Amino acid sequence: MLDLDRLAQASQQLIEAGRALDAASQVPATGGNFSCRLSDTLMAVTASGCHKGRLTTADVLVSDFAVRLLGTSRKASDEARLHGQLYEDLPEAHAILHTHSRAATVLSLCHVGDTLSLEGFELNKALEGVKSHETPVRLAIFDNTQDIAALALDVRARLQVDANLHGYLIRGHGLYTWASSMTACRRHIEALDFLMGCELELRRQR
Amino acid sequence: MLDLDRLAQASQQLIEAGRALDAASQVPATGGNFSCRLSDTLMAVTASGCHKGRLTTADVLVSDFAVRLLGTSRKASDEARLHGQLYEDLPEAHAILHTHSRAATVLSLCHVGDTLSLEGFELNKALEGVKSHETPVRLAIFDNTQDIAALALDVRARLQVDANLHGYLIRGHGLYTWASSMTACRRHIEALDFLMGCELELRRQR
Amino acid sequence: MLDLDRLAQASQQLIEAGRALDAASQVPATGGNFSCRLSDTLMAVTASGCHKGRLTTADVLVSDFAVRLLGTSRKASDEARLHGQLYEDLPEAHAILHTHSRAATVLSLCHVGDTLSLEGFELNKALEGVKSHETPVRLAIFDNTQDIAALALDVRARLQVDANLHGYLIRGHGLYTWASSMTACRRHIEALDFLMGCELELRRQR
Amino acid sequence: MLDLDRLAQASQQLIEAGRALDAASQVPATGGNFSCRLSDTLMAVTASGCHKGRLTTADVLVSDFAVRLLGTSRKASDEARLHGQLYEDLPEAHAILHTHSRAATVLSLCHVGDTLSLEGFELNKALEGVKSHETPVRLAIFDNTQDIAALALDVRARLQVDANLHGYLIRGHGLYTWASSMTACRRHIEALDFLMGCELELRRQR
Repeated sequence: MLDLDRLAQASQQLIEAGRALDAASQVPATGGNFSCRLSDTLMAVTASGCHKGRLTTADVLVSDFAVRLLGTSRKASDEARLHGQLYEDLPEAHAILHTHSRAATVLSLCHVGDTLSLEGFELNKALEGVKSHETPVRLAIFDNTQDIAALALDVRARLQVDANLHGYLIRGHGLYTWASSMTACRRHIEALDFLMGCELELRRQR
Repeated sequence: MLDLDRLAQASQQLIEAGRALDAASQVPATGGNFSCRLSDTLMAVTASGCHKGRLTTADVLVSDFAVRLLGTSRKASDEARLHGQLYEDLPEAHAILHTHSRAATVLSLCHVGDTLSLEGFELNKALEGVKSHETPVRLAIFDNTQDIAALALDVRARLQVDANLHGYLIRGHGLYTWASSMTACRRHIEALDFLMGCELELRRQR
Repeated sequence: MLDLDRLAQASQQLIEAGRALDAASQVPATGGNFSCRLSDTLMAVTASGCHKGRLTTADVLVSDFAVRLLGTSRKASDEARLHGQLYEDLPEAHAILHTHSRAATVLSLCHVGDTLSLEGFELNKALEGVKSHETPVRLAIFDNTQDIAALALDVRARLQVDANLHGYLIRGHGLYTWASSMTACRRHIEALDFLMGCELELRRQR
Repeated sequence: MLDLDRLAQASQQLIEAGRALDAASQVPATGGNFSCRLSDTLMAVTASGCHKGRLTTADVLVSDFAVRLLGTSRKASDEARLHGQLYEDLPEAHAILHTHSRAATVLSLCHVGDTLSLEGFELNKALEGVKSHETPVRLAIFDNTQDIAALALDVRARLQVDANLHGYLIRGHGLYTWASSMTACRRHIEALDFLMGCELELRRQR
């Protein structure tokens, strides 16, 4: 059953996140998509093709995790399934943000290997569950693809063998991160973009 | 015949595009110029010498594609002919934005060859007609010149042999891109500037 | 005794400093913490875990320099002791700002040695007591640790042998600086972040 | 004789220039100073020690070109003499802006020689008197000093042998540029900072 108060709150959170992330240049053009868990089976997710810095409540769609939309003629982003899969696999995830920052795009392309490990930064502690700067913050890296169903399965398989990820990068594309609330998820995005910017600058200095 | 409603709408779109592009540092000093197609023979184009972040309706001129101005004592930018030529050659173009971003200026000077190909970025899909990140986004590169009539002929010749361009760079000068509407054209500029910034950073990291 | 007028003024100064430093991207996520001296024994210091760009008076705690809080159930940041130690050791310090800028984070990690000396910049003169660009501005550098009590002792020991420091960096973490007033301390932060940004760019150019 | 209307206009221009240059991060801490010519013998110039992004009319001082102040107990910046000297030597100069941008600071320190020549940029045409991108924009470079009287004489000597300068850099310090109006001078600053940023990025790419 759809909780309309929760939906109204979620819509507001998605609109505000979009404004903040646009101001931080993390959702250029129509890049990015955002969602909130509404229940054990439903999510609120941003529609396809709209600018994330100028969202309205009409751009927030209600869907189950298999991306069957409720009561709308609009189209969800193809990537909505990546949100649904994360809500299925991570019961503690209540908000998901996907952004296209320059740092995420560039690092995902120039880093070799399937994992980016951010190490030795105090701001690692901004991520849920991290208590010390000595704990690495780890992001999986996947090659980009237009076959989102296949990518969702790859993410699922990776999460089964690697429970300590704080998000993942898609090469040349952007960052996905999740958290127990939208407030925490925005903190994750702010911290991860800062950390990736530091990492790029450190590599330039070496 | 001049459609005054269309002109009023076009003026508003040019003013708003200027404010947004100034906020994004893409039209420093009096750099840049913008236009909208008004009909099969007319365009609205920004006047010479004004700051593009502070346009008023008085800065929007009506002209045919050969840059014969209608009902004004003001001067169009010399580069207005580059807009007219594009509207003549590309019937689907309804808006053109020319910007001077740092990324466009630097890449156009340090890239060797007459074409910049942006490859492997998800945001390529923000360009009209691009459905996959595997489709390169290609920009022609021309040497800078003060002979705008000659440059317009060079652009025309290039478009005849290369229909899949999404815009062009003039070396040390800036970017031209066009689209089927001002909304789409602003999305093009936002995406192309992001992609060129990523490209520069990737070259630094290599 | 607690001077309530002074506390109200200090709260306002901390809130405004937070807004300005957030706009300058120097306190990402929940990074940073700020304080004002209230008396010979008390300070106003920001609470743990809140976003420094959106502080309210409820986020400003009153504490002695050993971080025994007065009349609140909230938690001070662990790092509040670093503020208390500085107020104990530096009677002329009336405001302390700790920020997490990218320049501070990166320089602290890539600079070898226990002191960063910024030399030859006119803006050195923005620091209290510096009258010429020929006077180096010196920041101590400490390794990061979660043992804040130990770090406070290290800072104390360093200040005893090196009276001319204008602040210190913690590796991968951020910058601490102090001044005789909040106005002067904000000037310090603005100057030091600018200088560290110049230093990084100079190292890239070499 | 002091024209009070002209002074009121000049004050407003200085306040607005400061706000815009602060928003563009070109006057960190208390860096920078600005002036307008009021007559053949008088100028309005910003006071010492104030933040240039938050100027009020009380921060605008009236002075002759030898920096003898009229009707104020406040102190002019030591560098006010550099403004006076330029108004003495360049009758066409009606506004002078001095800024501390990162690009100016870094380029002035890493460029070898006593002249920076910016070449091949379309935006060169934003500088007064430049009609083609093929015309270099040239800035003198002086070593920094606290002896402003001596520096003013060095600038004078240089202008006598090199009439085509558009401004000068002081190493590790910042940029001076002048123009026939404040509008033109702000265009100069915006263009020169853009061009120096491009130049730095081009040097990194090489």
